[in-house]
Amino acid sequence: MTAPLRLGIAGLGTVGIGLVKIVQNNPDLLETRSGRKITISAVSARSKDKDRGADLSGYAWEDNAVDLAQRDDVDVYVELMGGHEGPAKNSIEAAISAGKDVVTANKALLAIHGQALAESAEEAGKLIRFEAAVAGGIPVVKALTEGLSGNVINRVMGVMNGSCNYILTRMQDAGLTYQEVFDEANALGYLEADPQLDVGGIDAGHKLALLASIAYGTQVDFDAVELEGIGSVTIEDINQAADMGYRIKLLGVAQLTGRGLEQRMSPCLVPASSPLGQLQGGTNMVVLEGDAVEQVVLRGPGAGEGPTASAVIADIMDLARGVRISTFGQPAKYLVKARAARAAVSAPYYLRIQLVDKPGSLAKIAAILGDAGISIDRMRQYGHDDHSAPVLIVTHKTTRTAVDEAIQQFSTTGLIEGAPVAIRIETV
Amino acid sequence: MTAPLRLGIAGLGTVGIGLVKIVQNNPDLLETRSGRKITISAVSARSKDKDRGADLSGYAWEDNAVDLAQRDDVDVYVELMGGHEGPAKNSIEAAISAGKDVVTANKALLAIHGQALAESAEEAGKLIRFEAAVAGGIPVVKALTEGLSGNVINRVMGVMNGSCNYILTRMQDAGLTYQEVFDEANALGYLEADPQLDVGGIDAGHKLALLASIAYGTQVDFDAVELEGIGSVTIEDINQAADMGYRIKLLGVAQLTGRGLEQRMSPCLVPASSPLGQLQGGTNMVVLEGDAVEQVVLRGPGAGEGPTASAVIADIMDLARGVRISTFGQPAKYLVKARAARAAVSAPYYLRIQLVDKPGSLAKIAAILGDAGISIDRMRQYGHDDHSAPVLIVTHKTTRTAVDEAIQQFSTTGLIEGAPVAIRIETV
Repeated sequence: MTAPLRLGIAGLGTVGIGLVKIVQNNPDLLETRSGRKITISAVSARSKDKDRGADLSGYAWEDNAVDLAQRDDVDVYVELMGGHEGPAKNSIEAAISAGKDVVTANKALLAIHGQALAESAEEAGKLIRFEAAVAGGIPVVKALTEGLSGNVINRVMGVMNGSCNYILTRMQDAGLTYQEVFDEANALGYLEADPQLDVGGIDAGHKLALLASIAYGTQVDFDAVELEGIGSVTIEDINQAADMGYRIKLLGVAQLTGRGLEQRMSPCLVPASSPLGQLQGGTNMVVLEGDAVEQVVLRGPGAGEGPTASAVIADIMDLARGVRISTFGQPAKYLVKARAARAAVSAPYYLRIQLVDKPGSLAKIAAILGDAGISIDRMRQYGHDDHSAPVLIVTHKTTRTAVDEAIQQFSTTGLIEGAPVAIRIETV
Repeated sequence: MTAPLRLGIAGLGTVGIGLVKIVQNNPDLLETRSGRKITISAVSARSKDKDRGADLSGYAWEDNAVDLAQRDDVDVYVELMGGHEGPAKNSIEAAISAGKDVVTANKALLAIHGQALAESAEEAGKLIRFEAAVAGGIPVVKALTEGLSGNVINRVMGVMNGSCNYILTRMQDAGLTYQEVFDEANALGYLEADPQLDVGGIDAGHKLALLASIAYGTQVDFDAVELEGIGSVTIEDINQAADMGYRIKLLGVAQLTGRGLEQRMSPCLVPASSPLGQLQGGTNMVVLEGDAVEQVVLRGPGAGEGPTASAVIADIMDLARGVRISTFGQPAKYLVKARAARAAVSAPYYLRIQLVDKPGSLAKIAAILGDAGISIDRMRQYGHDDHSAPVLIVTHKTTRTAVDEAIQQFSTTGLIEGAPVAIRIETV
């Protein structure tokens, strides 16, 4: 008879309560599968007296997460408070010092302090696990760390912020502007208190940085993620992209290149017929590419009580089953610092410019592209108002640097109105 | 310094050689990630002298897999020969008796003898792992056993035979008959030596039975899988289904109902816009539904050297990392015998009948459906030749039993030519 695995849960929001419900509702299932009873010793949250829709009377209460993390009757400290400093960080450090394993859904904390935390856990012989931090209910940390553990990973891609995908698909479906859908989503409570975490790509960038670390054996480096949010995506671009058989997604891509590790989180065009292109609404999708497995695609809910709690309990079950795999898939001391490569991988680009209607203006634009070494795959010019017209260009493969150079040159011609739009077309 | 994990590999076909290549090409990666060197001690296959495109000179050779499985310098016996009796079974039993863990890609063997083998492994304190047996490179055994381990599983669905999906999508794309595409696929070597394993749904049924055991904690029971192959799917049905927004897939579904465990492998209609409906060619897809996680979809290559070897090495890496999870996700002695439920879950059905052109014949058909308690969602009658016309019916939810009764009644009317077609519409 193995002793129960005793949890201390800090944070009783959606995910914390979801976890409590799973532990309360399916004790026999968890025990049969893991070989141990899973119990909750103590919980902690900001306010003790709030009704959270679950009976917490059987658990000790701690006002302070750091105290909870160090309790003698806690084997696994479950951090579900969020925040990349303060109580979350302090309590996880306290848990490790006190000899506890840690399960967390905190992507921001790990994306910023993951290496240091993994190292201290390792020195203490303890584990930090974070399946719930990436893509909610999708077991993608496990798929990458374990399921594809024999692969050299070639590329990791993902749509990992459901709110952004909701906004982009809703813009297209309803023909609304970014601002209209943003306001709507905000009113519905779909966005973080600081919406930039969502629409600025920060939240998804945290997730990408975590996956990149596992994929390439590198120290997690969120600062090196090239971030571009969806705020500049217009309904015109969405419609034009659709006309040409593409969808616009906030897509994260991590690739190890000869020039270093490239991590990008930015709006991209993907083929409408691809799994990524077909992804609607708040669902998440991660694409893993390895030298042996070729391509595996995982799709599922990226947030919500049940799905995120499902990922948290999976980590807990693994601990109960005695699985002891390092935080990032290999000992933290072997993780290397990757050189950050910016836009090292070439791609086709979608360009939209508002061209002044003068004889020879299109020729001038084409010449600038040619001088920048960019060849044109497709070009469309549309009917115009008084004195300017939109021109759409799909280039052959080129670099971001070349595109930026060309855009810089455009501005010197006096033939362009407004700011040119350049969106990468990711091959998927 | 941990000792190397030493493999004995029986079967040097596509998958065996794929595994050898991974071990040879990426030794440092495997060691860094698992904490142990992965080495090959010995190999075995039918013919020693065949050129297999990999250098095997460094490994001992055994003519007999049973001898290989018992070698002192083998820690993990990797069975990649196939076949559900004979050498595969004997050698796995020998390996377990000799105290080896086992990794196999053998779905037929485990679908038929999995319970007995898991029990003997368990008694010996050894593991049998089989990620490669289900859906090739997709880490679905891991996702279900570990990633969703905190979920009550509501339904498992999958397109798990790439050849069948290739045939069905090719029929639609090229407008060819089943027999034409079957012959083409056979000539291209896409089908098993006994094509019934593919097109009869047997191979996919094996995989479904394995997933059902993990999902529901039941003893694997392939005999209880209701099997229906794709041989009776016509291009007419594919086209009619497409007209109504559906695709026809060979879909496996496992559900635990109040009446027992339902396991079906049969052609089904699924919405064209769903991930299953969008699946083209030889790719596999598994849909896992749990009470907490809602729905997770996994998509990837279901066969081939690299993908299948990727799954085999993942199991080996888990063993190197010290992961000791029971074969079917819980101790074999706790797995229960499930009562087999046949068609317990109701669904809408697609019916196609060839109706003789007589006054009142359609009314008669409608009356029979009504008497069987089947209500009609949509009906279409087409222009007819001399004396009969196709009638398409989509029913509301009903049972297979009711549909079969109605079809039985149809035949007594003298108004039907040929055999009526009835295909389940799976809600996805």
